[in-house]
Amino acid sequence: MSFSKLAASIEKRNSNLCVGLDPAVEKLPEFLSEYDDPVLEFNTRIIEATQDVACTYKLNTAFYEALGEKGWLTFGETVARIPDDIYVIADCKRSDVGNSAKQYAQTFFDFFEVDAVTVNPYMGYDSLEPFLSYKGKDAFALTVTSNKGAEDFQLVEVNGRKFYEIVLEKLASWNTNGNIGAVVGATQGDHLARIRKSYPQLPLLVPGVGAQGGSVEAVAEAVAGEGAPVIVNVSRDIIFAGFDEDFAVKVREKAFYYSALLRG
Amino acid sequence: MSFSKLAASIEKRNSNLCVGLDPAVEKLPEFLSEYDDPVLEFNTRIIEATQDVACTYKLNTAFYEALGEKGWLTFGETVARIPDDIYVIADCKRSDVGNSAKQYAQTFFDFFEVDAVTVNPYMGYDSLEPFLSYKGKDAFALTVTSNKGAEDFQLVEVNGRKFYEIVLEKLASWNTNGNIGAVVGATQGDHLARIRKSYPQLPLLVPGVGAQGGSVEAVAEAVAGEGAPVIVNVSRDIIFAGFDEDFAVKVREKAFYYSALLRG
Repeated sequence: MSFSKLAASIEKRNSNLCVGLDPAVEKLPEFLSEYDDPVLEFNTRIIEATQDVACTYKLNTAFYEALGEKGWLTFGETVARIPDDIYVIADCKRSDVGNSAKQYAQTFFDFFEVDAVTVNPYMGYDSLEPFLSYKGKDAFALTVTSNKGAEDFQLVEVNGRKFYEIVLEKLASWNTNGNIGAVVGATQGDHLARIRKSYPQLPLLVPGVGAQGGSVEAVAEAVAGEGAPVIVNVSRDIIFAGFDEDFAVKVREKAFYYSALLRG
Repeated sequence: MSFSKLAASIEKRNSNLCVGLDPAVEKLPEFLSEYDDPVLEFNTRIIEATQDVACTYKLNTAFYEALGEKGWLTFGETVARIPDDIYVIADCKRSDVGNSAKQYAQTFFDFFEVDAVTVNPYMGYDSLEPFLSYKGKDAFALTVTSNKGAEDFQLVEVNGRKFYEIVLEKLASWNTNGNIGAVVGATQGDHLARIRKSYPQLPLLVPGVGAQGGSVEAVAEAVAGEGAPVIVNVSRDIIFAGFDEDFAVKVREKAFYYSALLRG
């Protein structure tokens, strides 16, 4: 069943924390430069330090692509080092016409074997269908994002409601396989609460807590409510918690700190 | 100056044809399987056969990503084999919050050194800014795309106009570096003509001709009009024109056929 792996991982760890593995190379602890693949070593230590508190790892493809072909090797090897019962999201925000979207779906679901992807809905149904047709795999579509630019299009007023509400309504109508979730920024507190109320059965991936300044209280309320799983991503504030040989200890502390906060 | 390389390439070749290098592996001529890198060999022969008629090559990243880390090597080597005076677009449709978008911009502009990317505008200004801040590099933003799903969001009615018109208006207001173009599907004939009329100074990338069934006449009219460059992408109908040892001969014929059609 879709999202069942996610639900099981949340329950097992009693945690809704998603740790974002966004290894900006210029920020890695310096001592890692001695390793053949500093990024892989960095990710591996974080995974080892947080696997009992992270229900999900989210890998933003931007940080791997920036390393060229080696980055994709690191991406694949990182995924392989994540324990099998932890949910893995490729945060790729892909979108294209059906023929190309199918290639992206194959890349992430067949080749890298992640559990879910993020997708950009602007091109409409047939750009998402190749992802949705994978049973047992999930897709989180952008609705209202955590950045300021959300105002430009997502929050435009359309006949008394916001544009993202049209997106949400369509997503719900396309959800015949039950494998659609939505990305809702933590910095959009009011909208997050409204979405949770209107679509309690829609799994939510909530980025924007931590470095991006989203309200933890609003998010904790969404997490506590009845309904589909809500996972909350924190990247920079956890993975760059320390820079010495023992950085993973600080990473672990920060992960537990956020996981507890999210549970109120 | 932005888009100046594109304008020069169009003028030199007297052609508005963009050849889409979308090497779906299952469709490659069979004899190429003897080569170490069949995709690179395929692309190289197409480039050699069309470099006097293709003002632009567009590489859709979906087809390279699907090959894992090797695909990215092939992507880079293909770009390196394109003559320096031909405009190169990475059709990646990327979009993310500023911090991640910056990584994508570095990937395509610094690492792969392409001239332009395609971007998805749904996340708003700050998701595009990292691309736009590269002087001498260009970004084509999706507005109204060639697929059926364009109806779902792009063509939604908002206070008497279409949603994509709001997108276009914002794009125009953000175009302080003069390096924004728009992707307008050839299958959206009426909208293409209207966009060309309203924004004659906006360079257009028009996909959807050929396999996707867009009207060549409507496109030829847009190409003929006064204003910024209009380039028209054809992928499958050109690159899969033949499957024998001499496939490149057929590819060349098809490329000239389309280039002439576009000039009316």
